[in-house]
Amino acid sequence: MTQKKHPTPPKILSSEVTARSKLFHVEALSLEFSNGQQRQYERIKGSGRGAVMIVPINAENELLLVREYCAGTHDYQLGFPKGLIDLGETPQQAANRELKEEVGMGAEFFKELKMVSMAPSYFNAKMHILVAKHLYPEQLEGDEPEPLVVVNWPLSEWRTLLAQPDFTEARSVAALLLLQQFLEGDKDA
Amino acid sequence: MTQKKHPTPPKILSSEVTARSKLFHVEALSLEFSNGQQRQYERIKGSGRGAVMIVPINAENELLLVREYCAGTHDYQLGFPKGLIDLGETPQQAANRELKEEVGMGAEFFKELKMVSMAPSYFNAKMHILVAKHLYPEQLEGDEPEPLVVVNWPLSEWRTLLAQPDFTEARSVAALLLLQQFLEGDKDA
Repeated sequence: MTQKKHPTPPKILSSEVTARSKLFHVEALSLEFSNGQQRQYERIKGSGRGAVMIVPINAENELLLVREYCAGTHDYQLGFPKGLIDLGETPQQAANRELKEEVGMGAEFFKELKMVSMAPSYFNAKMHILVAKHLYPEQLEGDEPEPLVVVNWPLSEWRTLLAQPDFTEARSVAALLLLQQFLEGDKDA
Repeated sequence: MTQKKHPTPPKILSSEVTARSKLFHVEALSLEFSNGQQRQYERIKGSGRGAVMIVPINAENELLLVREYCAGTHDYQLGFPKGLIDLGETPQQAANRELKEEVGMGAEFFKELKMVSMAPSYFNAKMHILVAKHLYPEQLEGDEPEPLVVVNWPLSEWRTLLAQPDFTEARSVAALLLLQQFLEGDKDA
């Protein structure tokens, strides 16, 4: 396949935080590309610790999803449980904690499917997607303003899930399809 | 399947733009949830017109990808061509324009695979993912500071693409896997 070499990355001539809110810091970059072109770019800085998304499968071969209020779209969206990695946590520890907070379950088995990024032109937001199996009930207190609605979805009905109008988050969509790849690999093995 | 009812969305008590940069407006929301809990949320406002991502397949059954500098991660990432929908454009018109700008190709056939969102807790960013076939050469001038590197990837090697360390963008991952679903549907038909 045509795998041309990576170009040389631009030089960061200067950077400055130009806007700051409670959650977001916008950084303006002055860049010089290897061909001499200069441009102003903006990016948003986060905690840098990354996040996890968990694809939990219970003993009845159901996926456990959550329906949660999303301020960006001002509606409820269906997706897999997720959250930021706390200081000192491994992705698997963060996954187990979030699963307990959001779904009321822990898991004995975790397997990372892939690490994905989100709009890397603007963010440095890495998310580890993990499948979780061998679940056991354990509730941890989260910081949600209202309890999340947990939705059990038969794994065999995953195509119907993919078509749901409130199942749109790209990382949940990727997670569901990565799970299919993972399960097909299991079948071949 | 357990499809519990959507909860009642919270009431927006007030909203205020608290930080503003060239590209981003951060809006602070005061929310009252249906159980009486009040919280402050932040979200980022965009153009609201949405974006497109194009999965182009040429006559040699190769995917056409681009390798592009991403300021958020300060590295080059491999992904499908994409861009914002301009005022007055349909998603398909935007897809054809972006394809010409980024890859130097137009397409006679487009089919929308799914519309995805990105972190809807914080953004209202809808992206239409379209497959493009029956390509023809046509270059349009884009606004890129350096020409994008176009990478031809044999469709049959898609699992290798999925494993590439610079192919991480969740929407590109979702697009590649949605394409597999689409092509399998074709085979069954």
